[in-house]
Amino acid sequence: MTSLGDKDSVQMHNLFQGSWTQVSCPCCVSDRVEPLVLIRLSNKVQPITKRWLISLIEASKRHGGAALLAHPGEDECGDVIVVSAPRCTLLRATEDLGLCKKYRNGDMVAFSYQDRDNFSNVDNMQEFLTLAERQYIVKNELDSLQAQKKQRIPGVTEATGVLEAWGNIFQKLAKAGMIKDIVPLHDQQRLNDLGKTWYSGKQIWGQPLDAIHSYFGGTVAFYFSFLDFYTWALVPPALLGLVLTFLMPGGGSSGEAMGDDDGPSVSGHMVQAVFSMLWSTLFMEFWKRRSSSLSHRWGTLQLSEGFAEPRPGFHGTLGINPVTGRLEPLFPEWKRQLRVGLVSVPIVVLFMGLVVLGMIGFYHGEALAQGFHQDRGSWFSRALLYLPSVVHIVYTNMLGNVYSTVALQLTEWENHREESSFQNHHTTKVLLFTFFNNFAVLFHIAFYKQDLPLLRKRLASLLILAQLLNQFTEVVVPFIVDRFLSAPQKDQQEDKLDEDTLRAQRFLPPFPGLFGEYIELLLQFGFLSLFSCVYPLTATLLLLNNITEIRGDAYKICKLFRKPFSPPVSNIGVWQTAFEVLGFVSVMSNCWLLLLSPRVQEFCLEGGISSKNILLFAILVEHVLILFKMVLAFMIPDEPDWVRIKREQKEFQSMQALGQQKL
Amino acid sequence: MTSLGDKDSVQMHNLFQGSWTQVSCPCCVSDRVEPLVLIRLSNKVQPITKRWLISLIEASKRHGGAALLAHPGEDECGDVIVVSAPRCTLLRATEDLGLCKKYRNGDMVAFSYQDRDNFSNVDNMQEFLTLAERQYIVKNELDSLQAQKKQRIPGVTEATGVLEAWGNIFQKLAKAGMIKDIVPLHDQQRLNDLGKTWYSGKQIWGQPLDAIHSYFGGTVAFYFSFLDFYTWALVPPALLGLVLTFLMPGGGSSGEAMGDDDGPSVSGHMVQAVFSMLWSTLFMEFWKRRSSSLSHRWGTLQLSEGFAEPRPGFHGTLGINPVTGRLEPLFPEWKRQLRVGLVSVPIVVLFMGLVVLGMIGFYHGEALAQGFHQDRGSWFSRALLYLPSVVHIVYTNMLGNVYSTVALQLTEWENHREESSFQNHHTTKVLLFTFFNNFAVLFHIAFYKQDLPLLRKRLASLLILAQLLNQFTEVVVPFIVDRFLSAPQKDQQEDKLDEDTLRAQRFLPPFPGLFGEYIELLLQFGFLSLFSCVYPLTATLLLLNNITEIRGDAYKICKLFRKPFSPPVSNIGVWQTAFEVLGFVSVMSNCWLLLLSPRVQEFCLEGGISSKNILLFAILVEHVLILFKMVLAFMIPDEPDWVRIKREQKEFQSMQALGQQKL
Repeated sequence: MTSLGDKDSVQMHNLFQGSWTQVSCPCCVSDRVEPLVLIRLSNKVQPITKRWLISLIEASKRHGGAALLAHPGEDECGDVIVVSAPRCTLLRATEDLGLCKKYRNGDMVAFSYQDRDNFSNVDNMQEFLTLAERQYIVKNELDSLQAQKKQRIPGVTEATGVLEAWGNIFQKLAKAGMIKDIVPLHDQQRLNDLGKTWYSGKQIWGQPLDAIHSYFGGTVAFYFSFLDFYTWALVPPALLGLVLTFLMPGGGSSGEAMGDDDGPSVSGHMVQAVFSMLWSTLFMEFWKRRSSSLSHRWGTLQLSEGFAEPRPGFHGTLGINPVTGRLEPLFPEWKRQLRVGLVSVPIVVLFMGLVVLGMIGFYHGEALAQGFHQDRGSWFSRALLYLPSVVHIVYTNMLGNVYSTVALQLTEWENHREESSFQNHHTTKVLLFTFFNNFAVLFHIAFYKQDLPLLRKRLASLLILAQLLNQFTEVVVPFIVDRFLSAPQKDQQEDKLDEDTLRAQRFLPPFPGLFGEYIELLLQFGFLSLFSCVYPLTATLLLLNNITEIRGDAYKICKLFRKPFSPPVSNIGVWQTAFEVLGFVSVMSNCWLLLLSPRVQEFCLEGGISSKNILLFAILVEHVLILFKMVLAFMIPDEPDWVRIKREQKEFQSMQALGQQKL
Repeated sequence: MTSLGDKDSVQMHNLFQGSWTQVSCPCCVSDRVEPLVLIRLSNKVQPITKRWLISLIEASKRHGGAALLAHPGEDECGDVIVVSAPRCTLLRATEDLGLCKKYRNGDMVAFSYQDRDNFSNVDNMQEFLTLAERQYIVKNELDSLQAQKKQRIPGVTEATGVLEAWGNIFQKLAKAGMIKDIVPLHDQQRLNDLGKTWYSGKQIWGQPLDAIHSYFGGTVAFYFSFLDFYTWALVPPALLGLVLTFLMPGGGSSGEAMGDDDGPSVSGHMVQAVFSMLWSTLFMEFWKRRSSSLSHRWGTLQLSEGFAEPRPGFHGTLGINPVTGRLEPLFPEWKRQLRVGLVSVPIVVLFMGLVVLGMIGFYHGEALAQGFHQDRGSWFSRALLYLPSVVHIVYTNMLGNVYSTVALQLTEWENHREESSFQNHHTTKVLLFTFFNNFAVLFHIAFYKQDLPLLRKRLASLLILAQLLNQFTEVVVPFIVDRFLSAPQKDQQEDKLDEDTLRAQRFLPPFPGLFGEYIELLLQFGFLSLFSCVYPLTATLLLLNNITEIRGDAYKICKLFRKPFSPPVSNIGVWQTAFEVLGFVSVMSNCWLLLLSPRVQEFCLEGGISSKNILLFAILVEHVLILFKMVLAFMIPDEPDWVRIKREQKEFQSMQALGQQKL
């Protein structure tokens, strides 16, 4: 097990003075060890602590270890541990995760360790599991290391170095500052290959989704699939926007002069509103189908997170899990529900109230300052004009910072058993706030001030300016930095794959996560579906933006950040719900904007229709559209027929298996 | 197998000159045969046809038979066949249905024939399966008899007597008029016992639901459970109604003088609207929990209709079912969806349009007749005043009849594979029409005419008169008929349990099904949740009505009708959706009624609020209430924790079983 394969082995031997730990199981002896994950320790960590950690990582599960392979890096005193995984551990974890893999008959079947020999490629871990899966499994195993009994961490002073029985070891070490980071390692060769097909222009019309999934893992691949699908879905509304703006009579003026008081014509407005409803519904329904077929392809249709070990942060009274019969911490579901319903929801609502309060204060302050300036007209009063904006910006920023801490702690306190449930609740909280923060002003302008020209101006400037700025900071600046400023070191790195490669990877900034990317898409979708009938070119601008966004995001994740861990997932989670909810809100919003549009108002005045009756009509239209949207969403099956059949096959088989197994 | 147990055997031998067919399987020899189902043949059926049918019923499955026991009744030429089932057939059918039965460890586990010895009571079919389940299984087996090859029915002329290969035999015989009926037999002793605990006053506060389930079966038991739950749920709104009517200031007048123009006060109105929203949400959510625990208790949580044989009326091209691998007719799902979406939905909408058209025509005709009468004032014009009503009633009745035929045929044509899917689609169609027919006038009065006093009058008269009439026709008349007119025969029947008992059962009218009962509850729920804020005593009247309704329905099903077949079900099916949808409509309706109420209008005028602003406010309230309703419904889990744990346990076990079975 100390010997490494072919080319790598030479490089690895150059790279490390130490050696890999031994595998206890004879079936896992292989001539090749692939370094998967890097643990960065603090400089202060004693060699004795490092040795203890390595022995823990390599110990068998029975002895409270992680059953992984550990390597001490350059030497015993260095601040890294490189971790890999033997075949047995990987295979057992695959079963625990509920991943589906290719069976000998070609189907995707939930992997079973006992039945391993019937699965394809089961002898070659590089083929059987993707790089991302292997790295995720290693992280998962490390994260779930528990102290077998109350003990002192060797080489650490009494105060922080006591592990409680069943306490999570890595959480403890991270809290004590002894572990700085756990980083999955890049595979430069594969990364370069991926980059070539992805963003270097070879494949213009698509993305190498399978390669992304295999290299970066589930969440990242689902994000790029969604971005891809969304960008393609923008084509019809973009075309409609162009037609309405440049070809429809009466629509031209608004397209050319955005500050014009004239909106699109009434009929154009109606077409846009109904189209927007149809489009947002079809978009989400077809995405669900796409999502379930991707999930089938990537073997994540039957993830069994609920039956696996709870997430590291989860705590509760130790007991027997009634479902799996395993000893683990338990926390009643109703308690969690109560915490969410009675504490989290009110606090989130409170913060949204504070956003509204800030906005009201800002408008109030501005009116005051304006009045003061008109009365005095001095340089002091002129300077005071800026005060409300400054105060508002500071207030909003502070609120945002406080909220993000509160949201994380609330979600921790809700004590979710599964990582996905934790992520969903956390994302929902941050999402609601961010969305509210971004749209409160627009809603205020649209529905309270009812100032459509201002809305149009604001929307156009947001779309054009914000997107340009975004592209610049997200893509151009990092590109320049990467290409020109750090180029000399890079060339050198690409030539010799040695210890410095590992070191360099550690010093890249950590990947900021996909939240920012998703929220950007959601805000886009919001602009498009909520207000697009005010400014029909929205979709066209977004389409142009997204085509560059795809390459930009790809470049970013490949070159500019540390590789993220990415768990296998079966869909985009709570984001799907967010987009669906926005679809419903957009129907309401469009009906209102239609009602408020100056053309409609004119039309009513001319026709002698009372404003009450037109309001009643708008309400009727809104309800009918929502009903229609719901029926449409219900009619389109959420998964393609072939996925449904595969799923039902599995249900049937497992029903039969359960009957036979009891014999 | 010709000998029958103890008491029964003597009676049975008196009763039948013929004898039971032999069971081929040695494990099923028992000293007792229980007659379960009666097949009524036409008088014209030749003895040779009857013999052929009996031989078919008793033939093994391998030879295309039903593997049941048949008895020729009084003699070979008689017009009945009595059918029973041997143990093997019952057990295999139990597995096919996916029924859960008590395992040796006390859990409810999906029955597996191979593992039969580990289930409780597996040797005593009377204990293991309920009477209703045994009868349903017999009917199911008979219904799924298929011709093995193209053949002539013996004793029938060429024209109608040819069975196609794979053609359904009982459908064919029923179409040709040779089978008049298939009737499950009552067990007089158990029926009398059930009646005593159910409607004879012993148990005032509850119903013997388990006994009902065991005797009458799933659908009937679920109906009575729902009726029970609903009646209890009426207590809070009934109390609120009393408080609002008699204790609140300003509310009294409307309670005492229903024709009064004065509605409840504004605050009472608001309380009622918000309460109605909360109540309807909580009612449905808690019913779902109750429903899933009943379903667990009755072993129907894992029904596997989708994996069983298709329903008899289903047709398609013969092929291999991709899920179960069995040879059976196949029909693509998308084709069915298209038929539903492109044909059924438009036709249903068309008929609803015709209802509206009829209503408009009626109002138009009435105005015409009124005008004509005022002009002329003759006896002829006075008579003409009745014409619009008469024409409208005839029109509505004809439309209803045509529609019920159309709905059945459309649903047949949609070609549903599963019986439950067929039932749900058929029920939905009839339901929509009936509901529309009943509420169109009320909606017209409430929202078009905006005449709240008329609405209140109409609602009160509907509630009081219609319910009284209903009680009278449903309970009192049948009771009198049963007690006094048909009493002499009855006494005689109850004494000697012989051939005449069977004969008498056949001549009871067939049970009309639960549709009428459910729609009555749905209309009640509609009155209550849609319009209750206009007439707060609704719930009180309904509560009084339902307390007698329970006993009435119980008496009816026990005494006045033939026993119905009742398949095992896991919930009340499409009715649950109907009640939920009505809950949402009620939020909208309540907001509108609140807006239209004279007190609110007055209040606005006094406060100087424009009618447009109050309209905007009502819309806001509506949207907020609907959002709140959705959040509330989402927050309350649809199944109690213990049911969820049992379900997850099963999922976990079957996941593990699937992995191990492949070895």
